[in-house]
Amino acid sequence: MTGFQVLLVAGTHGNEINAPWLFDQWSRQPELIKTNQIRVCRVLGNPQALQAGKRYLDCDLNRSFASEYLLSSSSQDYEVHRARELLALHGQEGSSPCQLVIDLHSTTSSMGSSLVVYGRRASDLGLASLIQAQLGIPIYLYEGDQTQKGFLVESWPCGVVIEIGPVPQSLLLARIIDQTILTLEACFKQIARIKSRTIDFPSQLIVHSHIGSLDFPRDTNGNIKYCIHPSLQGQDWKPIQKGAPLFISSIGDTIYYENDETIIPVFINEAAYIEKHIAMSFTKKEVLPVLDEWKDSLDLLINQD
Amino acid sequence: MTGFQVLLVAGTHGNEINAPWLFDQWSRQPELIKTNQIRVCRVLGNPQALQAGKRYLDCDLNRSFASEYLLSSSSQDYEVHRARELLALHGQEGSSPCQLVIDLHSTTSSMGSSLVVYGRRASDLGLASLIQAQLGIPIYLYEGDQTQKGFLVESWPCGVVIEIGPVPQSLLLARIIDQTILTLEACFKQIARIKSRTIDFPSQLIVHSHIGSLDFPRDTNGNIKYCIHPSLQGQDWKPIQKGAPLFISSIGDTIYYENDETIIPVFINEAAYIEKHIAMSFTKKEVLPVLDEWKDSLDLLINQD
Repeated sequence: MTGFQVLLVAGTHGNEINAPWLFDQWSRQPELIKTNQIRVCRVLGNPQALQAGKRYLDCDLNRSFASEYLLSSSSQDYEVHRARELLALHGQEGSSPCQLVIDLHSTTSSMGSSLVVYGRRASDLGLASLIQAQLGIPIYLYEGDQTQKGFLVESWPCGVVIEIGPVPQSLLLARIIDQTILTLEACFKQIARIKSRTIDFPSQLIVHSHIGSLDFPRDTNGNIKYCIHPSLQGQDWKPIQKGAPLFISSIGDTIYYENDETIIPVFINEAAYIEKHIAMSFTKKEVLPVLDEWKDSLDLLINQD
Repeated sequence: MTGFQVLLVAGTHGNEINAPWLFDQWSRQPELIKTNQIRVCRVLGNPQALQAGKRYLDCDLNRSFASEYLLSSSSQDYEVHRARELLALHGQEGSSPCQLVIDLHSTTSSMGSSLVVYGRRASDLGLASLIQAQLGIPIYLYEGDQTQKGFLVESWPCGVVIEIGPVPQSLLLARIIDQTILTLEACFKQIARIKSRTIDFPSQLIVHSHIGSLDFPRDTNGNIKYCIHPSLQGQDWKPIQKGAPLFISSIGDTIYYENDETIIPVFINEAAYIEKHIAMSFTKKEVLPVLDEWKDSLDLLINQD
């Protein structure tokens, strides 16, 4: 037992280079990010993909933490090997165990600074409520989609993704670096307040919970026929209603949103999701009361030693 | 002799996917782009890299047309093989020869719609002057840099690059598609006017001629220490003077432009140029009179049959 440690992961996708660059700078300047005396383990998620300038070598590392991959010894994929390695190092039973993980991502979508939470674990929702109370950032609650699973943070007792955009793949942007630092420091500040038992939870948490994802319209060969409509491009987190344009063809044919329910699109035109057949995802806004269970869960996790 | 044909190349870089997508749509809808009865050969520059979602497999195709590569049979690089193949198909001595090439690119830099011309060939400058007179777009005149050579368009008697941005790599954007169509149609319109001898040249051509390129400040291990300053990001084509911020470190240290000469940066923060050690290039504005030699050269090339 080594006591509470936070695992920070950068470069889970090798073409998201801002957080890895920040780690490199931080290692040379320990004062760069205020950690509020929280013990931190920093790790590059996918160093080989980072070196190659690619999202991944064999398969998406952030889909490689599914139990069927981790328990089966048959996979030769580098990322499945790397998932096991990260757990052996920093999993709960690892050599330098961490109890909470923050996985740093960037996106070509206009997500701003945001968090992604997977499912409704008490500890994740509690942590998200504190960060949202400090920064006011939106939270994408991803759940109920069996086509996408095996996310890194799910293999730790508590974990969130920090998702920041827009930024092209493989590009350094000072704005993204600044937003990453700001969000990370908020995480440390809130964790430190739990540790010192000076925490004051908000009364509610606003989440945007996943409804479903929509692919690009494709032809019978699987080729994309329509691209994102210019009036939707960059409009993540903004509600759309029946009649809103979604897609446009090269000759200007438009496809509209046709349901009566108002929805809120996120991850509009994330470059890496084309291969996953996701042009955007839809969410609905939910206001959740902050539960004692969330607070207790976080306290137990962080103040265990 | 098959008469005058224009070669159009999309996907010379496999992660610039807008022009290849446009070609695919165009092949299904022949009326999509007005060619003014100009005969066109469309080709994907680097189909294997496009398939792999990468800029290139072995080396940059748009640096593979240097004579030392083309004449030497020793290179095993796919792109050198592909360069030879494109010339065998559509070079002047090829099986379906083209006399003029338009190479369609996109960039993460905020270049807008622009042309790149390599050196001061009469035919290229003449064509550029006509397109600029119609659209008013800026032209980057690249010359005098021995570290970057072997560009595709240099292997044809006349050729320009259409460069459009900003757009992330591997992302479809309707805006980029529209800008590509608009610029291509201007090319066809002007070529058709030369062909019908109804052309009216402007009196001058404004170019931004290459002075040099600047790398990111790096440490002794070659790692980037500073990123593009936020006040410079996205400011391509805008003159800067002594004292303008160029780079910023993670702790806010700023590096300023220190020369007395006013310069105009282009290709600021192009993701693919990090490996080429180019953070931006500098240009100076020149106003060139349109010469009879330019007009004659184009007329000879286009009206040879």
